[in-house]
Amino acid sequence: MISQDKTSQDKVQGATSQDKIQDKVQARLLKGFRDFHPPQQGTRIQYIQTLQTTFAQFGFQPIDTPTLEYEDILLGKGGGETDKQVYRFLDLGKRKVALRFDLTVPFARYVAMNLQDLTLPFSRYQIGKVFRGENTQQGRYREFLQCDFDIIGVDSLSADLSILELIVASFEALDIKGFRIHVSHRNIISSLLSSLKEEEKIFLSRSLDKLNKVGLQSVQQSIRGRLSPGLYDTIMVCIQKEESNQKTAEKVRGLLGADHPTTRYMFDLLACLETLGIAEHFLFDTSITRGLDYYTGLVFETFLTEQQDIGSVCSGGRYNNLTALYSKQSAPGVGASIGLDRLLAACQPTATTNPKTLVVIFPLYAQSLAYCHTIMRKLHQHNYSAEVFSSPKGDKTTLKDFFKYTDKAEPHYSIVIGSEELENNTISIKNLKNKNYAQNISLTAGLEFIHEQKRI
Amino acid sequence: MISQDKTSQDKVQGATSQDKIQDKVQARLLKGFRDFHPPQQGTRIQYIQTLQTTFAQFGFQPIDTPTLEYEDILLGKGGGETDKQVYRFLDLGKRKVALRFDLTVPFARYVAMNLQDLTLPFSRYQIGKVFRGENTQQGRYREFLQCDFDIIGVDSLSADLSILELIVASFEALDIKGFRIHVSHRNIISSLLSSLKEEEKIFLSRSLDKLNKVGLQSVQQSIRGRLSPGLYDTIMVCIQKEESNQKTAEKVRGLLGADHPTTRYMFDLLACLETLGIAEHFLFDTSITRGLDYYTGLVFETFLTEQQDIGSVCSGGRYNNLTALYSKQSAPGVGASIGLDRLLAACQPTATTNPKTLVVIFPLYAQSLAYCHTIMRKLHQHNYSAEVFSSPKGDKTTLKDFFKYTDKAEPHYSIVIGSEELENNTISIKNLKNKNYAQNISLTAGLEFIHEQKRI
Repeated sequence: MISQDKTSQDKVQGATSQDKIQDKVQARLLKGFRDFHPPQQGTRIQYIQTLQTTFAQFGFQPIDTPTLEYEDILLGKGGGETDKQVYRFLDLGKRKVALRFDLTVPFARYVAMNLQDLTLPFSRYQIGKVFRGENTQQGRYREFLQCDFDIIGVDSLSADLSILELIVASFEALDIKGFRIHVSHRNIISSLLSSLKEEEKIFLSRSLDKLNKVGLQSVQQSIRGRLSPGLYDTIMVCIQKEESNQKTAEKVRGLLGADHPTTRYMFDLLACLETLGIAEHFLFDTSITRGLDYYTGLVFETFLTEQQDIGSVCSGGRYNNLTALYSKQSAPGVGASIGLDRLLAACQPTATTNPKTLVVIFPLYAQSLAYCHTIMRKLHQHNYSAEVFSSPKGDKTTLKDFFKYTDKAEPHYSIVIGSEELENNTISIKNLKNKNYAQNISLTAGLEFIHEQKRI
Repeated sequence: MISQDKTSQDKVQGATSQDKIQDKVQARLLKGFRDFHPPQQGTRIQYIQTLQTTFAQFGFQPIDTPTLEYEDILLGKGGGETDKQVYRFLDLGKRKVALRFDLTVPFARYVAMNLQDLTLPFSRYQIGKVFRGENTQQGRYREFLQCDFDIIGVDSLSADLSILELIVASFEALDIKGFRIHVSHRNIISSLLSSLKEEEKIFLSRSLDKLNKVGLQSVQQSIRGRLSPGLYDTIMVCIQKEESNQKTAEKVRGLLGADHPTTRYMFDLLACLETLGIAEHFLFDTSITRGLDYYTGLVFETFLTEQQDIGSVCSGGRYNNLTALYSKQSAPGVGASIGLDRLLAACQPTATTNPKTLVVIFPLYAQSLAYCHTIMRKLHQHNYSAEVFSSPKGDKTTLKDFFKYTDKAEPHYSIVIGSEELENNTISIKNLKNKNYAQNISLTAGLEFIHEQKRI
């Protein structure tokens, strides 16, 4: 149905030259970009609204930032890999601009510009589209919806915990069964690698980050030659999965020592999660490092237990200087990012999540038009969704045309207004699911009919 | 606070060269682009959610289309004026692409691609950002939120009426006082100008469209020389405001004749609006033509009675071939577009529309952290918004720091957990508005306290 990515040179010429304006332009989408049809978009809206409600409950405030920013603002933070995927161009004023590729970098810029006006700690969320010229052959899209939430201004277990609780609350509110948040602390790996050069650290950290994607063997191959045998063995112990979170915390104690702040952090975090009764959603997983070098504490990734292969659907961690690129004032923080479109693709929405119009009203004759719209207005006032049907055939529309429409549109009730109903100021209503109906009753009785049928 | 549009050449060089990565990039926004801070963005979200609910009530379904499309798709429909404002560039695959400048053109492309799969009539809405490189000196922005809703597949008064009712319902749901929808029919002016050449018609139609912006005198000056005296006088009669909608309909009858379909349309529309009891929101205004040449029937613009000067906040009309550019199959329709950001700017939101967090909880000692988060979880389960406070000072945070925060963040209640509360499994809670408080009570009693205080 959707043809993508054809060469469009000729068409472009045609469209810009006035005398060819009658030519047809081939309707098509850019590779990696999508239309969202009603059922999908309905679910997307429902997800967004659910998250907005959940965030508000945790005292998080919404912000929005521009889709387009100066190129140097956006590229400052990214590594080389991301830079290649950024949509960059010269705008009409010859400024070097770019489309945002995540919501973290614009947030850092926002904080740098507004730090003096913010009440700290500042808990914000942002839901918006981001753009990456990724390789679409891997099933990736070039425009997708992200949802970020962060607490900035404090460096505390309490803030870290709030972010983790908010992830649990969000996934529960979205009714997502079977998710697990893999948590670790950046210091665990860093401490073990402390004897190495900075470049080596980054290389190893990035290699380990790929563990869930490429598997243990591949990681072992890529790092074995670069480490002393002793250190290699220690790293292997570190990234090995343990049978319980308690055991993992004990392993950290073994590796770093009982007095190490990170050891204490892991035990404190575990105690809090258990007290809160949400520990089941967490897997202490010391192989999680997050490639990005700005994380300094807690790090985490979230996997759907039934669909590990789609990768993390919510990642993040603690960073201690978000605004480093733009400002001398530092702003510590902790935050997470939900890949909302990825999550939506994974959780195939059911048809029931997209409510159909409850009532469709059919004016058998043009004279009853105003009356039908009055009925619609009354139904709206009673919080029922309703529409008046009209067909391309105009006055020649028959009951058959109407039922052809209701078969597809699947409303719960139909109301038909013929000459008798118009004359008597009544309606004829039918429950299309169980075929119950009532003829020539008052609108008040009709409302009662809908109310009664709901109980059946 | 916000520095805009400084020359950024030096900074760009700095950011892309590795050895200068430690340099600060100046945090700034592009001219014509905005950050939305929490109170504004909160209202924006509220507006969007309200519209989504209202549209669903009328049986309208949501869709979404890409922000980025092939240039020829987007430029096909626009006139020369719009084209100059479009953000266009070559993407990473050297494709000529553009950022959408409205939601109508992408919808036309969407319909052309999906017509065979749509159940007609198809009522859709779309809320999204659009981009125009407009002159920012006129207070215009380059990225703004639009909200479009259309019914396609039918050409009927009933569909036109549904769109007009939906505008009224939307503005009522948004609690906007004092709006008036100026309606006309494109055929009125077209019939009067039928003797003129096509170019002349378009010129006159566009001149008349500026009436509300530039005033009568200016319009008279620009068109007087181009018309015969007889026609000029007729046009002047036509665009003159009448004392009632009835009088305007009668004027149309005088100009076009009693049997003209457009005369009948105007009287039928008036009758329906009166029957529905919403006629007060409408002004029949035969000076409304809408410059765009694709309108073929009903046309309308909506003004805020207290702020006429900001221009129309909701415009649209009937078009009989939306997909002409992309497809031989024609699709008649009627629709409207709300300038959501313009409307938001006009309706200065009050602080009360942005709920603060209801309860802020303060752990006086680090040991009570898990307990405080458990209280937060319980409050969330009772649908109260709540957060646990932590400050940059960590363990050294005092009650004074806490109250400094609550003074700014303005929660309704504070809960403080000291050693006594932790030991007894109790809370101390205070209503910060009326200073009522309760010490050392159970959490259940605390929930009761909040419930009771709400009644005071």
